[in-house]
Amino acid sequence: MELLKDRIRREGVNLGHGILKVDSFINHQVDPALMLAVGGALAARFAHLGANKIVTAEISGIAPALTTALALGIPVVYARKTRPVTMHPNAMTVTAPSHTKGVMTELMISPEFLGPRDHVLIIDDFLARGETIRALATLVRRAGATLVGIGAVIEKRFEGGRAALADLGVPIESLAVITSMEHGRIVLED
Amino acid sequence: MELLKDRIRREGVNLGHGILKVDSFINHQVDPALMLAVGGALAARFAHLGANKIVTAEISGIAPALTTALALGIPVVYARKTRPVTMHPNAMTVTAPSHTKGVMTELMISPEFLGPRDHVLIIDDFLARGETIRALATLVRRAGATLVGIGAVIEKRFEGGRAALADLGVPIESLAVITSMEHGRIVLED
Repeated sequence: MELLKDRIRREGVNLGHGILKVDSFINHQVDPALMLAVGGALAARFAHLGANKIVTAEISGIAPALTTALALGIPVVYARKTRPVTMHPNAMTVTAPSHTKGVMTELMISPEFLGPRDHVLIIDDFLARGETIRALATLVRRAGATLVGIGAVIEKRFEGGRAALADLGVPIESLAVITSMEHGRIVLED
Repeated sequence: MELLKDRIRREGVNLGHGILKVDSFINHQVDPALMLAVGGALAARFAHLGANKIVTAEISGIAPALTTALALGIPVVYARKTRPVTMHPNAMTVTAPSHTKGVMTELMISPEFLGPRDHVLIIDDFLARGETIRALATLVRRAGATLVGIGAVIEKRFEGGRAALADLGVPIESLAVITSMEHGRIVLED
């Protein structure tokens, strides 16, 4: 997606240790027009799979998941990291390591909103090592739902998430692929 | 906004102690079509104020803030509750009490994305006691920006947030007003 890649080239900052700062349009400030285009592009890649629900993780997954859901006309469920007082007592919970925070994070989804009849598309902002997406896929399986695809806005291919998730046997799509962040550069796949 | 009020009547759950569960369309599962309509309705109420930026708080504020931003064609900045590794070291921080969690929460915004030239509309999912919105208004002031309006999807008027925020001197709009949740009921203002 050229619009997105141009934006990464202009505003993305390589902070070292494989950390890409895109806070000016995705992770702190959000450009809604870009995010709408991102959702449209992700939706187009998955439209043929017949998903009836999108699953994402709070916090940064919400914006691209919402615009993809809008384009597909289906609801989105965002896994919670802290248990709200309104959450169903039987919420399904998995833990996933957060490398940027150095801690284990819980992800929770209520069985009220994910079950055996659901065909699920997982959408997140980043595909890096794939650990958050793996945790979401575990929630989908535990709910008895069917995973049909995985989409990310930005993929850091050098972190190996795509290979790590290959056993899930579903299409994995990303709109901008970064192949290297060595020596302070941000190398985007053509 | 009748579409929203109908949804609250059909799916809202009074959990007692003033807690309204709207997890099936706002706080855990999100209905994107409803959220787009919510954003359009909020945008219409504030279009004349010339805001150039929306400020909200993660997590549940993101969806309505994004659709309002989309309708107004301006960016949205969501205040972070935990400091990401990508965040500017000089991020502005305020603390606000979270009654549903019984703890103090930090809200942080980077000076990269909020400054003296900004005219800001604050959007959040709920207006209850107004403490989160007050904290966001403090961040706006500290950034040297100008607050022009406050919008919420659902207002729990009996919790007094509107009166508590009156000193800010800006229009406060909400799309559904709940006047009472006593005796297990959810009373919506006509």
